[in-house]
Amino acid sequence: MGELVLTTFDWVPQMPRGLVRDLRVRWALEEAGLPYRVASVPFADRTPDHFAHQPFGQVPWLTDGDLSIFESGAILLHLAGLSEALMPADPRGRSDVTEWLFAALNSVEMASLPWALFQFWGGSEGVPGWDRFEGFLKARLGHMEPILARREWLAGGFSVADILMADVLRLVDRFEGLAEYPACRAYLARAMARPAFAKAHADQMAHFAAAD
Amino acid sequence: MGELVLTTFDWVPQMPRGLVRDLRVRWALEEAGLPYRVASVPFADRTPDHFAHQPFGQVPWLTDGDLSIFESGAILLHLAGLSEALMPADPRGRSDVTEWLFAALNSVEMASLPWALFQFWGGSEGVPGWDRFEGFLKARLGHMEPILARREWLAGGFSVADILMADVLRLVDRFEGLAEYPACRAYLARAMARPAFAKAHADQMAHFAAAD
Repeated sequence: MGELVLTTFDWVPQMPRGLVRDLRVRWALEEAGLPYRVASVPFADRTPDHFAHQPFGQVPWLTDGDLSIFESGAILLHLAGLSEALMPADPRGRSDVTEWLFAALNSVEMASLPWALFQFWGGSEGVPGWDRFEGFLKARLGHMEPILARREWLAGGFSVADILMADVLRLVDRFEGLAEYPACRAYLARAMARPAFAKAHADQMAHFAAAD
Repeated sequence: MGELVLTTFDWVPQMPRGLVRDLRVRWALEEAGLPYRVASVPFADRTPDHFAHQPFGQVPWLTDGDLSIFESGAILLHLAGLSEALMPADPRGRSDVTEWLFAALNSVEMASLPWALFQFWGGSEGVPGWDRFEGFLKARLGHMEPILARREWLAGGFSVADILMADVLRLVDRFEGLAEYPACRAYLARAMARPAFAKAHADQMAHFAAAD
């Protein structure tokens, strides 16, 4: 392992603060107790060097020595290989964490992000596709509900899969989408009660506030 | 490695044929020349055993001996660890493939799936959110275009990242979404020209046709 440097924007508007995806990486780093520093790139003017690290002009990316990694899922899987606080070392444990990490992103967030974007982008009132998108999300949450009622965490002990699933559910909860899913909401509360989440969230808020 | 068994539905309606996600897994298995067999579960009645393997009641899942894995991204990453035809063995090569695999799913499909669902679910005519969803996809394709104009494949040689990115772009192309992105379209044509894709596609079509 080399020096770990997490890069995020220097500033973002008020609305996304607390939701920028560097939070997922901060949270994992704090859970694992890995030393790291945070670097900034301009939100307003995205340079060729920024696109060389993150081809869509987004954040975050992580450098580990001379290795540069983008996509929060890929970054968390990389960090999980550095600490058993994030993923067990045995093959079955690694496989279980990996499938749930993809499920958070590709089965739940794939349904929740469009649902949330409808609300960001002008509301759902009278939109013909809305019911279908809401139904897509509800179907996925309906399957998560009995699973989370029976388990403390997704794959044995707490892992990077829980960081991603909880962060995905946070955005749903922000728009009151968990009201009918008490086990999902209780799981989210358990995850957010972890000191590493509190530290990561406070650090992100302070980082953006410092640039105001 | 144990016996590899890919499970998919016994039958699906005409429309999704050729697009069911077992295709991604078949394609990877064919590229790697790994022996496997295909098992079926009922499309119409999804059993508790089905949900035990795939908690959302979807397909595919893969068993490798007594390990059962769901999520196409997790399955492809598992197979990539079994064959250098799917991912290089060195740490940098593995990292590059992994980040692009996540990018296919979480940066491109996260934008393309809602865009495609609008068209499946009653069309985009007069839908207020439509322009924003189309703009989201176009922004992502706009970043992919210069990258794919300069590279044959995403991360060095052909890899599982290309299987996922090409499969994601296939759905966009089906709705004429690549007309303004000639490098994306040429990349997709290169990927689909591979014998392993042709075999995987023909096998999926034959599998569902056999149940008609």
